[in-house]
Amino acid sequence: MARERTLRRRRERSPAVAQDPKGEFRSQFPPLEILSADQLEAVHQASLRILRDIGMDFLHDEALAILRDAGADVEPGSQRVRFDPALVEEAVAKAPASFKLHARNPANTLSIGDGAMAITCIASAPNVSDAEGGRRVGNYADFCNLLRLAQSLNIIDLLGGYPVEPVDLDPRTRHLDAVAAMLSLTDKPVHAYSLGRERLMDALELVRIARGLSDDDLKQQPSLFSIINSSSPLRLDTPMLDGVIQLARHNQVMVLTPFTLSGAMAPASLAGALAQQNAEALAGITLSQLTNPGAPVMYGGFTSNVDMKSGAPAFGTPEYSQAVLAGGQLARRYGIPYRSSNVCAANTVDAQAAYESMMSIWAAAQAGASLMMHGAGWMEGGLTASYEKMVLDADMLQMMKRFMQPMKIDDDELGIDAIAEVGPGGHFFGSPHTLERYETAFYPPILSDWRNFETWQEAGSPTTYQHANKAWKALLAGYEEPELDQAIREELDAFVARRTEEGGAPAL
Amino acid sequence: MARERTLRRRRERSPAVAQDPKGEFRSQFPPLEILSADQLEAVHQASLRILRDIGMDFLHDEALAILRDAGADVEPGSQRVRFDPALVEEAVAKAPASFKLHARNPANTLSIGDGAMAITCIASAPNVSDAEGGRRVGNYADFCNLLRLAQSLNIIDLLGGYPVEPVDLDPRTRHLDAVAAMLSLTDKPVHAYSLGRERLMDALELVRIARGLSDDDLKQQPSLFSIINSSSPLRLDTPMLDGVIQLARHNQVMVLTPFTLSGAMAPASLAGALAQQNAEALAGITLSQLTNPGAPVMYGGFTSNVDMKSGAPAFGTPEYSQAVLAGGQLARRYGIPYRSSNVCAANTVDAQAAYESMMSIWAAAQAGASLMMHGAGWMEGGLTASYEKMVLDADMLQMMKRFMQPMKIDDDELGIDAIAEVGPGGHFFGSPHTLERYETAFYPPILSDWRNFETWQEAGSPTTYQHANKAWKALLAGYEEPELDQAIREELDAFVARRTEEGGAPAL
Repeated sequence: MARERTLRRRRERSPAVAQDPKGEFRSQFPPLEILSADQLEAVHQASLRILRDIGMDFLHDEALAILRDAGADVEPGSQRVRFDPALVEEAVAKAPASFKLHARNPANTLSIGDGAMAITCIASAPNVSDAEGGRRVGNYADFCNLLRLAQSLNIIDLLGGYPVEPVDLDPRTRHLDAVAAMLSLTDKPVHAYSLGRERLMDALELVRIARGLSDDDLKQQPSLFSIINSSSPLRLDTPMLDGVIQLARHNQVMVLTPFTLSGAMAPASLAGALAQQNAEALAGITLSQLTNPGAPVMYGGFTSNVDMKSGAPAFGTPEYSQAVLAGGQLARRYGIPYRSSNVCAANTVDAQAAYESMMSIWAAAQAGASLMMHGAGWMEGGLTASYEKMVLDADMLQMMKRFMQPMKIDDDELGIDAIAEVGPGGHFFGSPHTLERYETAFYPPILSDWRNFETWQEAGSPTTYQHANKAWKALLAGYEEPELDQAIREELDAFVARRTEEGGAPAL
Repeated sequence: MARERTLRRRRERSPAVAQDPKGEFRSQFPPLEILSADQLEAVHQASLRILRDIGMDFLHDEALAILRDAGADVEPGSQRVRFDPALVEEAVAKAPASFKLHARNPANTLSIGDGAMAITCIASAPNVSDAEGGRRVGNYADFCNLLRLAQSLNIIDLLGGYPVEPVDLDPRTRHLDAVAAMLSLTDKPVHAYSLGRERLMDALELVRIARGLSDDDLKQQPSLFSIINSSSPLRLDTPMLDGVIQLARHNQVMVLTPFTLSGAMAPASLAGALAQQNAEALAGITLSQLTNPGAPVMYGGFTSNVDMKSGAPAFGTPEYSQAVLAGGQLARRYGIPYRSSNVCAANTVDAQAAYESMMSIWAAAQAGASLMMHGAGWMEGGLTASYEKMVLDADMLQMMKRFMQPMKIDDDELGIDAIAEVGPGGHFFGSPHTLERYETAFYPPILSDWRNFETWQEAGSPTTYQHANKAWKALLAGYEEPELDQAIREELDAFVARRTEEGGAPAL
């Protein structure tokens, strides 16, 4: 019966949104190098000097103990840790160059670090917005709808966190309901927040249940990832350090991302912000590898700049894009997969949203990133998840993905016979060579409106924003919940119920 | 007195639009190669086969005579010409790798082919549009205003033609008034249309007068350029061939740009469209070099694709961007400077206009283009020149230019002392290292609105389009007519008056 319903739904589904099929985002081009070998070495050495001479604060007793035991210099009566460069370099060298990130649906399992770029949905926005509803505080209904969109969009490979914060859920049990929803409404790999040990362990247990694995098997198969942000400059706070240690112990994926906003939490020079980013990333990765050598980690780059006049954060700027390339080179220097993002500072889905995101997407793709966070939906420097932006980003990412694929050059594609047949002054509209390629020759965009001006005007002069509004509704209407074994569903529900009854996790 | 007025105007000028200073757009990155050496050779060989076996129509007796004399195979009683590959390769090899394109203001003279990308204003749009006036047929008043904007925008290096067609001017004398306006309202290098010998020679005479040169000196100093479009597939028409021959004879710059729209005037395969583009470009360049070996030419790439469902031309697509890179490789193979464009198919200045143009700008910059046509203002596949898009493009180009510049890495920029001084948990807002960089650290955008949502909303929720509308008005208000020697102005006026009295050029 359930299967019949699914089939019926499939037939009734609107085919309004033509998407490219699922498949890896893989660039045919070698990564673009913005730093010379000497410059790369200078940034590396500067960050080692920062860790050796200035040091970094670790707000976590167990982390301090691990670092002290490994030979780091923990300042007595303080949380300041200084590192011998060799200690850092030896620890970082233990991180793997690639690993799998498993999904509950094996078809969605990702290879991280082998040249493809995995793309997440927007994560962690406090607000949500769409054309009709406007901007509003995050809530569970929108949270679920954005998950459905993330599941429906082929270009989205995994979830980067909560697309929007479901503020209407009790903060003590929010993580249980949210992760359970992620595991039932989607079947792509998931992220859990490092908001203390209990929440992270609850999420890991839910993932274990969804995958139907034993604890031991789960340790062999990384199945969730968590973003660890340093509190720049040069500080890692308690819940984040809980995350670093627990993720390493459970062999799950830790993405160390310093938030080095040049001119605010980092020097007002790109070189300085990069040196600080690198120092913070290396310090966190060092702790991970000292906790469990070989645990899967990623090197996150998020360096951008502020508007010097107002202090407002800016994204998708020339400086941001340069930092993205430099971050990729640093990550490659250490042989660690690189995380970048698709970001913008726009308040509405207009030209600014598009050009700032294009600057980000292109830089990430050319930096050889293995993970693009916030791939679709991000607005206002991350303060709002936009339904319309989600489709706009999906379209731009699909374009970039096509662009990054090799060109086919053979006799049939060169088509000299077709050119001879058409001849000077003719046209190719009806030629057999054209008809053979009718369906597949070129990228069919989701949003671009290529009608002539008069026809477009008669249709009401729709903007990309309005096309995106229609498209997400069609996608949502066509959403199909991925299959989930009934026994697993019951086990997930039972775990959520039990932990809810126990009171969840302490309020933050 | 005139100088006093200028100075007064300068002081009164609104400083509302912060632009980057004038300077070359030069990429720090090597050109991006999409074709392997074998693929590049395959396209080259395919185009030689097209020229040898299929041939091309030259609708011009003198061109046919030049080609016949050089040994090409002109089909008796026809305009079809077939080329021995060696003839093409030998002629093309005579084209110079670089040359100057002189402006009447020597400070604006350009070096073409030495690694920098010269950027033109939009050219040849039949319509013009702005937010208040809407879309209207091109006219002389808008033509002049767009020239003033092109003069005011530092990122615009030269004029690519009429930014919009001044339809209200008599077509017999339009070229006289239009070129005279270009030479007085701006002091950047100019383009003239190849619309028959008379118009081109009139333009050349106006340029000679503006530069105060003799005929002989003008022949030593290329001072105008003209776009030659083939009538794809495989045809060059009479006025264009007039242009090829006259430009070569007068040693002015000829830019051979096939309009190979894949799926319409070229095969529905990118490889086929490129082979045809290359054949047409090589044929035109061959004629130029046979007419005057060493005459300055450029290789133009304009291959894009149609929407296969409607036949509508599309721009800034993944296929377009791939063709841009491939075109750059072909041009480099022949050692000829490469022309690309900033194009989009959008009907309004929205996200589509931005992402399609970003795809074009980025591809051109990474293809190593020496000339970007239609750099600012192009909409609707070239059917409309938009005031607002002109500023949007200028901003995006400035961003790309900054991005393409090398990063500075030295002790001062790495700022370890500043990081030590601020220390873990501090902030860089007031640090001396930040204050030193306050004015110059980051790109100050013309349009991006980085205010937080609430402040932005209180300001009326302006879009990029609205910011662009304000910006072009401020630019126009601050426009200053460049100085022009009174004697030269009188000579220009006298020439226009004489040629007008003679009836101008025959209506087309």
